[in-house]
Amino acid sequence: MNTPFAQRRRALLSRLAKSRLGCLLVTRPANWYYLTGFTGESGALVVSRRGTTLITDGRFTAQARAEISGVRIVQQKGSLVAAVGEFLKGAGNVGFDASHVTVAQRAALRGAGGRRVRWVPSAGHVEELRSRKDPQELAKMRLAAILAGKVLEGALKMLKPGVRELEIAAEIEYQMRHLGASGPAFETIVAFGERSAYPHARATAKRLRKNELVVLDLGAILSHYCSDITRTVVVGRASTKIRQWHKSVQEAQAAAIGAVRAGASCGEVDAAARTVLAGHRLDRYFVHSTGHGLGLEVHEDPRVAKGQKQTLEPGNVVTIEPGVYVPGVGGIRIEDDVAVHASNTEVLTRIPRDLIEI
Amino acid sequence: MNTPFAQRRRALLSRLAKSRLGCLLVTRPANWYYLTGFTGESGALVVSRRGTTLITDGRFTAQARAEISGVRIVQQKGSLVAAVGEFLKGAGNVGFDASHVTVAQRAALRGAGGRRVRWVPSAGHVEELRSRKDPQELAKMRLAAILAGKVLEGALKMLKPGVRELEIAAEIEYQMRHLGASGPAFETIVAFGERSAYPHARATAKRLRKNELVVLDLGAILSHYCSDITRTVVVGRASTKIRQWHKSVQEAQAAAIGAVRAGASCGEVDAAARTVLAGHRLDRYFVHSTGHGLGLEVHEDPRVAKGQKQTLEPGNVVTIEPGVYVPGVGGIRIEDDVAVHASNTEVLTRIPRDLIEI
Repeated sequence: MNTPFAQRRRALLSRLAKSRLGCLLVTRPANWYYLTGFTGESGALVVSRRGTTLITDGRFTAQARAEISGVRIVQQKGSLVAAVGEFLKGAGNVGFDASHVTVAQRAALRGAGGRRVRWVPSAGHVEELRSRKDPQELAKMRLAAILAGKVLEGALKMLKPGVRELEIAAEIEYQMRHLGASGPAFETIVAFGERSAYPHARATAKRLRKNELVVLDLGAILSHYCSDITRTVVVGRASTKIRQWHKSVQEAQAAAIGAVRAGASCGEVDAAARTVLAGHRLDRYFVHSTGHGLGLEVHEDPRVAKGQKQTLEPGNVVTIEPGVYVPGVGGIRIEDDVAVHASNTEVLTRIPRDLIEI
Repeated sequence: MNTPFAQRRRALLSRLAKSRLGCLLVTRPANWYYLTGFTGESGALVVSRRGTTLITDGRFTAQARAEISGVRIVQQKGSLVAAVGEFLKGAGNVGFDASHVTVAQRAALRGAGGRRVRWVPSAGHVEELRSRKDPQELAKMRLAAILAGKVLEGALKMLKPGVRELEIAAEIEYQMRHLGASGPAFETIVAFGERSAYPHARATAKRLRKNELVVLDLGAILSHYCSDITRTVVVGRASTKIRQWHKSVQEAQAAAIGAVRAGASCGEVDAAARTVLAGHRLDRYFVHSTGHGLGLEVHEDPRVAKGQKQTLEPGNVVTIEPGVYVPGVGGIRIEDDVAVHASNTEVLTRIPRDLIEI
């Protein structure tokens, strides 16, 4: 049995052996998919040298049997945490993800597991493996990125005065699925006019007016992997100020993409964007980080943020998405997905970045 | 200032006064929306007699200022938990939601808050208020339920041999938005044939064949409130066995809806469905609970599950959704949304429940 899932479980076990954890409790859905291929919505995976066990409820056991191999499946009777605690009785050191397990869940695990389990906070084991994509994963991410670009280009053609943000969002998500995506990677952002100054604006019934800014930020899930792309355009004519801002953001993004390479720290990449914007006196309008890792989840390691010391490695895929947001006026963001290779970087999202006036 | 949001904050403060909590830290997005109208994706709300404060990051401060009134807005500098801990220094007893705050977050809160804060696990304060919908909320939920019914009826018309699960899911979510929804309340379930035996099947590229079972389970978010409806049909002719199963599920659902009334326990309602299925020797195929509360979130209090002692109250809205799932054959589920009033119950989703053969 040498599926990618089995290989990943072996890689995880090598890590665990070094950390002296007998067992790892895997609670995040993206992590259990990565290790087994199970796509159910509820469950927990226990990985140990003695084998891997999925504990889940009656809604998902038939699905689990169809989806996974080489993993024992246990159907919980009562609550998930009670079943997991019971299963792990006497297991010794058990690692768990303190950034995912809630205070109430840990209390229940402790109660059910009894005295002979020591719960050890140990985040990041699976996430670190996931952050280095293998060639098959990169191939899927390329396709997800191309799909997002196509959908974005299609949406631009629908922009005309009078159209509503919600209509564009609906069309975007429909087209994604039409092209084979299982769905959006996150709630599609469509923001017109002043609303573009909200970096994470939810689409509303607002209608587009002439000469307004439009921010489209969308991503698709294709074969389980996410893409994430943003473009900013104007329907009509852009003012001189808007053109200057757009040019500055484009320049900041190019600088950050240029800084992406194996061995660079995430903080350096973030600083590359921030320095360009500071040169245009726009840094105070850049209110978020430069980017984030992308893969099975739309936000994962590594984080491309101010001061981050973590270095980029081959196989990382990150977004690079600087923006400026001026309350009462509007916002501009440009975002692409970038893969880090040993000796070069590869931009996965390949549609033009210029300010388009439609 | 007497917005519904301000009224809810006052109701919460009365509860807190009885519980001797000086302060409540509100971390769930649905809870902070309920109390303030803030729709941002990241933040934390601190509610105390001295006023309410929203702590959020630069992506959401402009949006918060536009959306909320009577609430102080603080922009965090570093991480959210560090900012919250810092803000609460010396605050005494602070309630937090142990079923939402992670082990890592509590550790960070403790570090930043210092010794003069006592973190008290205290879940359910806002959830209990939310479980009793006021007339304005019920009006919104009626519209969300009607919208879901319309979309489901539209989707039935698209079912014909050869169509893919993903196409139907895409059309469903497109039509929701076309009718004004901000999006789906959860990932739309479209399951054909044997896949209908997975209660939470994700739509795939599978094509529909003649005489296969089809389970459609969908919900829309309209004006922030969720709906949730399921129907099971056959494209072609149903076997005698399928007809019998469908009739049994329909009978079980009618019994459970009949058991819904103010004062009944959730466990009684669940038992009403389970008893009917047991009478048909189908109870072992009913692998989940009978229903769940519905509102700003698609799963909220009260839970309609085996043995639940909680009693139904006027203003509760719950789903009633028994099902039978036979591995290798298929599944049948029928789901409606039911509001509890003082002297009657109201089914919000009003489309026919019979087994349709298309």
